[in-house]
Formats: sequence, structure tokens, C-alpha cells
Amino acid sequence: MNITILGGGGFLGSKVAAGLAKEGALGGKPISRLTLFDIAHPSRPDASFPVRTVAGDLAELPADAVPEDTEVVFHLAAVVSAAAEADYELGRRVNLRGTDAVIDACRRLPRPPRVVFTSSVASFSGGQKAVLDDDARQVPANSYGAQKAAAELLLADASRRGFLDAVCLRLPTVIVRPGRPNLAASSFVSAILREPLLGLPADLPVSDDFAVWVCSPRRAVAWLLHAAVMDTGPMGLDRSVNPPGMSVTVAHMLAALEEVKPGAAALVRRVSDPVIAGIVGGWPAAFEPLRARTLGFASHEPLVEVVRAFVQDDLAATRRERGTG
Amino acid sequence: MNITILGGGGFLGSKVAAGLAKEGALGGKPISRLTLFDIAHPSRPDASFPVRTVAGDLAELPADAVPEDTEVVFHLAAVVSAAAEADYELGRRVNLRGTDAVIDACRRLPRPPRVVFTSSVASFSGGQKAVLDDDARQVPANSYGAQKAAAELLLADASRRGFLDAVCLRLPTVIVRPGRPNLAASSFVSAILREPLLGLPADLPVSDDFAVWVCSPRRAVAWLLHAAVMDTGPMGLDRSVNPPGMSVTVAHMLAALEEVKPGAAALVRRVSDPVIAGIVGGWPAAFEPLRARTLGFASHEPLVEVVRAFVQDDLAATRRERGTG
Repeated sequence: MNITILGGGGFLGSKVAAGLAKEGALGGKPISRLTLFDIAHPSRPDASFPVRTVAGDLAELPADAVPEDTEVVFHLAAVVSAAAEADYELGRRVNLRGTDAVIDACRRLPRPPRVVFTSSVASFSGGQKAVLDDDARQVPANSYGAQKAAAELLLADASRRGFLDAVCLRLPTVIVRPGRPNLAASSFVSAILREPLLGLPADLPVSDDFAVWVCSPRRAVAWLLHAAVMDTGPMGLDRSVNPPGMSVTVAHMLAALEEVKPGAAALVRRVSDPVIAGIVGGWPAAFEPLRARTLGFASHEPLVEVVRAFVQDDLAATRRERGTG
Repeated sequence: MNITILGGGGFLGSKVAAGLAKEGALGGKPISRLTLFDIAHPSRPDASFPVRTVAGDLAELPADAVPEDTEVVFHLAAVVSAAAEADYELGRRVNLRGTDAVIDACRRLPRPPRVVFTSSVASFSGGQKAVLDDDARQVPANSYGAQKAAAELLLADASRRGFLDAVCLRLPTVIVRPGRPNLAASSFVSAILREPLLGLPADLPVSDDFAVWVCSPRRAVAWLLHAAVMDTGPMGLDRSVNPPGMSVTVAHMLAALEEVKPGAAALVRRVSDPVIAGIVGGWPAAFEPLRARTLGFASHEPLVEVVRAFVQDDLAATRRERGTG
């Protein structure tokens, strides 16, 4: 089986690549080649099969990024929320034109490949009181979410036409992200766990009862791999899934942090920020993801395991990168 | 007030232009100039104000199609359903890239103009038993509907960003269309009224109890003009409206036809067509358009008036065009 990961150098892309390298197979079929595409050549995981890298612009997707015998395309390449908000044209170019380029690349193949696309909870609004069911409309409050929702429509239509066979996962906020605090409004959701685990302080701009819909990187990767091999027949025209994340409050997160590293929660400083609270307060705090369960997406592991998984998978690398070790 | 109609040579575009020419004003403000844009130079209505025409490709929208002092843009230009299904790239180019070009044209203006966009009931599926409320999701079953739903998302986001101030109307099937029967699956909905009024037979591919969500050209024009001047403040992030059309059955339509022209319904031949019945059977037959009423969109006139209006407004021109007079 030949597989391409678009955005193969990103946080989730490199984890999917590592997962495929470790297994050597997908859905019971041995992997014969993996292609990793990103703006710059991604680093290659150690694998028993050949791994090629391709660098370029998603909107002008090079033909060798999706070779003729590709069976699965993970389309994870995106301009993320803060960047798409800051640069409208860049977001539109990558998130929308880029998805059209993926569709066109798939149309050239002799057989329609499975396309696994990462959409986002950011394509919804609704606020803290919302519990969204599978039929909830996407009324985005940011350009990234609007572009993702539009891309879902294009991929569903391309599936209906037989150009490809798409599964779009509207990923929750992924915690715990490695790296540094940044200007994204959601930065604090990972920072209040990551920074104290590094022995560093973190600012909390919202109240302790603020709720957010999250998933772990491990669970996101497991969902993406399931989406690559599942039977799409029961999906019909609707190729989008709200996967079974978790609705957790800041208080839940700090309790899990304390359980993993006693005393660490004291490093979290309450610094209320009405601007950030206003933005994140518009995001839906919970979903009722019945369809995802019917389609075989695994339920989420407990929050304390999410914090432990960060310590196991990403803390050492984050220390090295940040020079805080 | 300076106004542009994109698609100013089309069926609804030319009726909006004629309506503006007749009134000489919009929302109580005198019209100082009207620009009509289409693939070919549209014909100009007799008007008390200057009317310019511009011809070109919507996806490469010429700057003079939306001059700097434009206050209202009617964005009615589209590749319609059968054509977008037959030519994927053309539909994407006009319906999606074209809408991006409209957004970019508006971004260049010193003040964000009102943009009135025609989306479509074809952006929904659901079938004969569906009664869709204002929060119903768009799960399109055709490329035209997918492109329209995606364009709505882009226009709502552009409104949020302050590039323009959009109102997107998801128009019902417009009856009675002039012209000839064509290959569109919905062709029969107008044909079973228009053809007998011309003294010609028409084929009915569905059963008499088949229901469809319709509006008249007069009502569509009235809604478009209302959308051009209404207060968009109460719309918030959601710039789309399901206007208050009517759910009518074939039997209703034939009864209205008989009332306007006794004996005419006998020209309708029952020729069942499972392919057409399958396509149109997926369309939602009814909406509960509460939001549109709150936003001031006028309720629909009775069906028999729709048939009479065709006789008054379009029958003579259709006879001339068809050579059936």
C-alpha cells in the first residue's frame, strides 16, 4: 500500500508517519512506500519501507506528492487558525485552493484514493452552553473554520463524484501540544499543562470552570488511521465526522496535572484576559458524537492519561527544543 | 446610490435591473448608476439613470464591474446545476473562484458594500418527507449545491472580517421559468405550467403528489431587493436565509393552471421517469422559514397568482423567442 501524508512535517503528520513506520502496515496491508509532503522536506521516520519526501506549495501540489499508485492520502496540511486570521489570502490559498489541488491530484489517479482530511472544531461556534449533535450546522467565527467547512463540502462532493473517497475529521483542540506558548487564542489550553510540566509558569486567561472540547495527539492519530481504512459506505453523502473527544474544564485539567506532577498546578497564574475569553468563549464546549461511535471511532482515554502521554511522548523533545532541560 | 448586478444578463438579473430602472431608487435612495456585468454585454433597461455594461469572466472580475463607489452588489452570476454537474471545473471556477473574485473586488472598495448572493435550495438534501428548519445542515447532493454552500461560508467570513456585508438567499426552484424544456432535472417543474400555457404538451416524470419548494420570479426579485437594504445587524455570523417560498405539489400546480387556462392541464402527459424522480426526490420539499419572516422577507403570494404573473410578465416574450406565437 502506497500512502501520502500532506503536511507530513507537522505535529500530527509526523506522528502519523511515525505510527505507520512502527506498524509497517495499515489495515492489515503492508506499506510499500510512504511519501511525506510539506513546505520544507519533512524529516523521515525509521521505517522498513521506502520513505520519500517532497517539498512545495500545497496550492500548486507537485504531481510526485501523490503518485499514481497512491491508495491513501492524509490531507493534514493547513494554515492554522491564528495565521489564517492574520493573513486572509494565505489561509484561502492553502486551506481552500490547496484542497482543490488535492482533489485534482486524486482525479488524475487510476483509482480514487481514500482521503483523510483534518477539519476542526473551529468550524463551529455556539459557546460554552452548546452541546452539538451530529447534525449541528457549522457557523464559523474565524476564517480558518470557514475555509475548513468549505473544504469539507468540496471533499464530500468530490467523493460523490467518485474522484476520491473522503473522511473529514473535525478534530477537537489537541492537547498537550509541544512547543512554546503562542498568539493563538487556544494556546493556553496546552500551555497550562505543558509549561508547569517543564517547571515554568503559565497564564490562565479564563475561569477555572471554562470548558473545552479536546483530544490527545495519540487519540487523534488513532482516529486518522481508522479513517484511512474504515468502510465509508454507511457515510452516504455526509463525509464529515465529529470524533469522540472529551469536554473538560480548566479545573479538570489542573487536577490531572496535579495527579501527574504534584505541586505543578501552583505554577498556573490566573491572569484574566477578556479578549481571549471572548474568542474562546464562542467555541462549543461539548459534542454528542453518536455517529462517530457508530462508525467505529474509539472513545477517548481519561484526561490523566493524556497528561502522562505528553510526559512519555513529547516532554523530552520539548525540553531539548526549548532549552529548558 | 451605485449598484452592480453580476449576472445582469440572466433571468433574475435582468428582472432586478428592470425593477431598479422602474423605481429609480433603492431603499428610498435615488440610484445614480447601475453596472450590469455578465459573460456577454447584457441588454440595458430603459432607466432615468446611467446604465453601464461590462462583459467578462467572473473568476477574473474586471475592476470596472465593481466601481469604487459601489454600495450594493447583486451577485447572481452562476453556472447552474446541470451545467456544474456536467463540467466540474467550470462550476468550481465560476461558483467558487468567482465568489472569491467578488470578495476581492469588494475588499478594494473604500467602504464595504452590501452583497446580495443567490444560493439555492439545491444546497440541501433530505427528500420528500423533509421539512427543514433554519438550522438545517446543508448536505448537498450535487456540485452546484456544494459550491453554493461553500460560497455562503466564504461570504459570511468576509462579512465578519468587514470586507463586505453579505446576505445569502437560498432561493427555491423559481417558477415559471421562460425558455424551453432543458436537461435539468427540475425542468419539468416550470414546463408543466409554461408549455400548456403556450398550447404545447409537457411531460410529467413524477407522480401528482410530488412536492417541491418554489417561488415566483416576482417574489425572488422582491426578496433580493429587500436583502439589499435590510438591517443585517440581527444576522450575526450567519449571513444565510431560507426565504419563505411555498411547498406545492404537482396537483396544486395543475389546479392553478386549470384555473388560469381551463383545459390546459390536459396537455400534461404522465411519462414516469425513474431517473429524474430519483434526483428530484432527494430535494427537500418544504422549509419552516421563521428567520426570514423575522428579517422582513415577504410571504409568498398564492400559486394561482404565480401562474397569472407568468402570463402577464413572460408569456409574450416566450412566444416570440420560441416562435410559437
